Amino acid sequence: MEFSFSPIAYITSCYPEKFGTPRQGALAPGSWGVIDLEPWIQPELAVRGLEGFSHIWVIYVFHLNQNKQVKAMVRPPRLEGDKIGVLATRSPHHPNPIGLTCARLDGIEGRRLKVSGIDLVSGTPILDIKPYLPQADFFPLARGGWADLGAAKGLSVCWSDLALKDLESLAPEHREAFQTLAEETIRLDPRPVCYRENQATEAPYGNRFGIALENKNILLEIRAGTAEILRVEPLPKTPK
Amino acid sequence: MEFSFSPIAYITSCYPEKFGTPRQGALAPGSWGVIDLEPWIQPELAVRGLEGFSHIWVIYVFHLNQNKQVKAMVRPPRLEGDKIGVLATRSPHHPNPIGLTCARLDGIEGRRLKVSGIDLVSGTPILDIKPYLPQADFFPLARGGWADLGAAKGLSVCWSDLALKDLESLAPEHREAFQTLAEETIRLDPRPVCYRENQATEAPYGNRFGIALENKNILLEIRAGTAEILRVEPLPKTPK
Repeated sequence: MEFSFSPIAYITSCYPEKFGTPRQGALAPGSWGVIDLEPWIQPELAVRGLEGFSHIWVIYVFHLNQNKQVKAMVRPPRLEGDKIGVLATRSPHHPNPIGLTCARLDGIEGRRLKVSGIDLVSGTPILDIKPYLPQADFFPLARGGWADLGAAKGLSVCWSDLALKDLESLAPEHREAFQTLAEETIRLDPRPVCYRENQATEAPYGNRFGIALENKNILLEIRAGTAEILRVEPLPKTPK
Repeated sequence: MEFSFSPIAYITSCYPEKFGTPRQGALAPGSWGVIDLEPWIQPELAVRGLEGFSHIWVIYVFHLNQNKQVKAMVRPPRLEGDKIGVLATRSPHHPNPIGLTCARLDGIEGRRLKVSGIDLVSGTPILDIKPYLPQADFFPLARGGWADLGAAKGLSVCWSDLALKDLESLAPEHREAFQTLAEETIRLDPRPVCYRENQATEAPYGNRFGIALENKNILLEIRAGTAEILRVEPLPKTPK
């Protein structure tokens, strides 16, 4: 038996690519997105009353998830190489590639919802939106299992003089917001587990990575727990 | 564009029918269910590590939702007749009939998850299960919009002598648990809005209702905010 759903919306977000998109939006409060509701749901009527809520659940499809094989176990970054059952994680590789994120709702303009604190790559199809109900969704005494094992280590982030000059010329109007977003995003360590720690020196591209953020590309080098942002370049326009 | 998903599980719950099933599981902590994971997801491996979490998200299909037409606005019981945008509610009548519930995880036995505090009718197909992560899902300062307008009124519940005698003979071993569950469920007022308050006297079946709970049928009469449980009968076995 199968159930089929058409997207009710698509998001445009600050994350043009999968690499660099955080695993939990709450950890990058500066991340932003615009959700465009589809005409078939009569969006102007369907969102009436939603403006009173500060947070919304977004149920979406991990549409860039290519693997067709069902993975029963995965290696979450936090466990540094250990395997765990996929249903015990929020990995994108669940048997059904469905994502769940609680985003901050910053505003509604017609059929567009402005959100922040998100972990959705730009272009993600959205299946449903629901209000966050404190009285139903709030479990202050919940046990967080293996995810309670202290915060993820994360990276220190610093900027080279060259990168700061790039910023000056590329994003003069909202430079501070962009800088905060870049730091929040990179601090979470976007590298797959196999590129981290010991393995880093043997990584095929060395320790250098490029992360697309908004309409820019950030070139960085990671060594011993510190990410140095080397350059910030304009992102070449890609056809959607 | 459409996305298709196969259920990863089905639930058997204390609610054999849609009528009487609560709208939020957290409000009926005595409600219970057993989630049977499907073999195609390699369930014994897929749930490894889930036992450390006290709560799980269940993403499911409102499979009994018959209406094919897209409703942009609905009348939630709390608003007593007023309309609101469907995306501003947790109504089952969203454009995609997808449900989201946070359940308490009471135990795992092989490929079966025992849960409580649920609002799923027995037989509901489940698309995904995710751990509840306090650090990602917990928004203590969230604003609850119209749903913050005080608790729903609810009903007082009392038992007739006859019903208590029925209980004595039908459920001697877990009578107390059943009684609690029945009270939690009926207190939430299962009646559709159009059957409530003023309209109640003109309802086609008068003020009497039958609610199926576990393997029993509860006959009750509602007058002026009080539900009197008149009888408890065995539920006729229905083919699944």
